[in-house]
Amino acid sequence: MSTATRHDPYPSRLVDTPALVPREDPVVWGDDPGPLDPELVSAYEENGFLVLPGLIPPSTIAALDADISRAAADEDVKASDEAVIEPGSNELRSLFAVHRRDDALGALAADPLLADIARQLLADDVYVHQSRINLKPGFRGREFYWHSDFETWHTEDGMPRMRALSCSVLLTPNHTFNGTLLTIEGSHQHYVSCVGETPEDNYRQSLRRQDLGVPDDDSLRELVRMGRINECTGPPGTVVVFDCNVMHGSNGNITPFPRHNVFLVYNALSNALVEPFAAPAPRPDFIATRDPVPIRR
Amino acid sequence: MSTATRHDPYPSRLVDTPALVPREDPVVWGDDPGPLDPELVSAYEENGFLVLPGLIPPSTIAALDADISRAAADEDVKASDEAVIEPGSNELRSLFAVHRRDDALGALAADPLLADIARQLLADDVYVHQSRINLKPGFRGREFYWHSDFETWHTEDGMPRMRALSCSVLLTPNHTFNGTLLTIEGSHQHYVSCVGETPEDNYRQSLRRQDLGVPDDDSLRELVRMGRINECTGPPGTVVVFDCNVMHGSNGNITPFPRHNVFLVYNALSNALVEPFAAPAPRPDFIATRDPVPIRR
Repeated sequence: MSTATRHDPYPSRLVDTPALVPREDPVVWGDDPGPLDPELVSAYEENGFLVLPGLIPPSTIAALDADISRAAADEDVKASDEAVIEPGSNELRSLFAVHRRDDALGALAADPLLADIARQLLADDVYVHQSRINLKPGFRGREFYWHSDFETWHTEDGMPRMRALSCSVLLTPNHTFNGTLLTIEGSHQHYVSCVGETPEDNYRQSLRRQDLGVPDDDSLRELVRMGRINECTGPPGTVVVFDCNVMHGSNGNITPFPRHNVFLVYNALSNALVEPFAAPAPRPDFIATRDPVPIRR
Repeated sequence: MSTATRHDPYPSRLVDTPALVPREDPVVWGDDPGPLDPELVSAYEENGFLVLPGLIPPSTIAALDADISRAAADEDVKASDEAVIEPGSNELRSLFAVHRRDDALGALAADPLLADIARQLLADDVYVHQSRINLKPGFRGREFYWHSDFETWHTEDGMPRMRALSCSVLLTPNHTFNGTLLTIEGSHQHYVSCVGETPEDNYRQSLRRQDLGVPDDDSLRELVRMGRINECTGPPGTVVVFDCNVMHGSNGNITPFPRHNVFLVYNALSNALVEPFAAPAPRPDFIATRDPVPIRR
C-alpha cells in the first residue's frame, strides 16, 4: 500500500497486537471566544464531550421529526444508497448525507450555533464530514459496540488528524435504560490501535455490524480504569458534542422507547481527507465528504 | 391435552391472540408481622418488587464468590445437567439447583432472613422452587427480553397460582449501564397471555434464548403506560425481592463490568407444582422442584 510510507501517528488495522497510543493532537485548537463558556470548553477538553440540554428548540425538533417521518415512508429514499434498512424488516434504520437535503435536516447541519461551536473548538472553518439520522427502535434496538469514530475515519476515509467533532441531536428522550450513548471520560486522549485488515467495500456490512476497528478488552478496561463511563441522557433537543476520538458505544434497548437522533460530524477545513490510511479505497462520498464546502459564517 | 379441561385463570401458549388478563391472586397473602416493615410490604404490594441494599453482609458475598469461582473452574460441574455453558466459549453462564449444594450457596437459599421475608409475603411455609447463579459477562453480556417468570412456571412447570417470589442477590455492582434488572412497576397485577405452543424439551434451548412466552409489543406498551420502568441497581449484597408475575428483563452489557447474581425462587408449600398447564411434559427437577421440602423455620 502506497500509504504505508507516510508518517502516521495513529496506526490501526496494520498491526498484529492492539495498543494504546497517546494522542498527538490538541482537543481544543484555539482560544477565540464562541458560544461555549470557558468552563464548558475546559470540560470538553478534559472529558472529551459535552451534554447540552435545550440547545435545539421544540419547534425545530418537531420539524425534524416530520421530515424524518416523510423520509422513512418514501420508498425512493429507502432504496437509495444513503439508506440503511433494518435486516429482517423493511424499516429505515439510518439515512446518510442528510446535510444535503433541502429540508429541516439540511438546515440543522448548517445551523449557525452548531457550526459556531465546532469552529470555536476546532479553530478553523468547518464542513460536514458525515451526517445521518439514526432510528433505533424500541423492544429490539441493538447495541453499538465501543469504538472511536476517528479510528474508522482515519483508516477508511483518510482523515489525517484528530480535528473533528460530532454533534448528536436527540430527537426522543434518552434514558439510561433505552440504549443511550455511553462515553468514557478522558478516553479521547488515547488512541486504541486495533488489529485486522480492512477488506474492500467493508462499509456495506460495517454500517450494520462492526467487526473491524473493534478495541480489545484490555484497552477498554484500561480506559474505564482511567475515566468513568458517562450516560449521555437528556430530553429531545439535547445536543451531545463529542470529540472524534472519544471511546463510545451504546447498549441495546428492550424498552418500548425508541432512540432517534441526528448525527452531524464537523471537520476542520484544514483537516480534509487524503488517501485512506488502512483501506484499499475510500468510502463513498455520502459517508465521507471528499469535496469539502465550508459552512458559511 | 388432559390439562385443557382444568379451570385455568392464566391461559398462555394455548391462544391465537395475546391478551392482558387481570391477576386473580393476592400479592401479599397475609398480614402477620415479619422482617419487612408495613411500608415495605405496601410498596411490594403496589409495585411488585423491593430493592433492599445491604441485606447480605460482605463476608457472605465473599464466601459466595469463592464458591462460584470453584464451581466455574470445575469441569465436572460444567459437564453437569445443571450447568449452562456460554455458546462459543466454555465458560459457565448459569448453574441451577444451587440450593442443594453443601456450601455458601446452599446456605444462602436456606438463609432465615430470606425465607422469613418469603413466608411473610406468601403467608405459608415455603420451599425453593428454583435456584441458580447467573454469571453475565462484561463486554458481550446479552439482553434478557421481557418476561413474567410465572408465565413459564405455570405453562411449563405446572405452578397453579401466583404465590411465589424471587430473591436476586447481587454479587457485583449493578449500575444502570451494565444490564441491571429492569422491572415494570405494577405489571404484576396483569397477566400477559402469550401465543405459541411449547415444544418438547423446550427448556434446553429456552435457557439460552427465550422464543416462547414472549409478551407482545402492545401488551408491553400498555404495561409501561400504566407503570414506569424501574432500574434495580445496587451494590453487592443488595437483594431484589420480586413477585413471580412482575414483567422484567435486562438490556445487554457492553461495559467491562460483569453482572453476577444468585437467583432464588420461593414458592408457597400449598402452591406446589401440578401437571404443566401448556407443555407436553414437566421440566426436570433441577429447574423446577417437584418434591418440595419446606425451609425449616
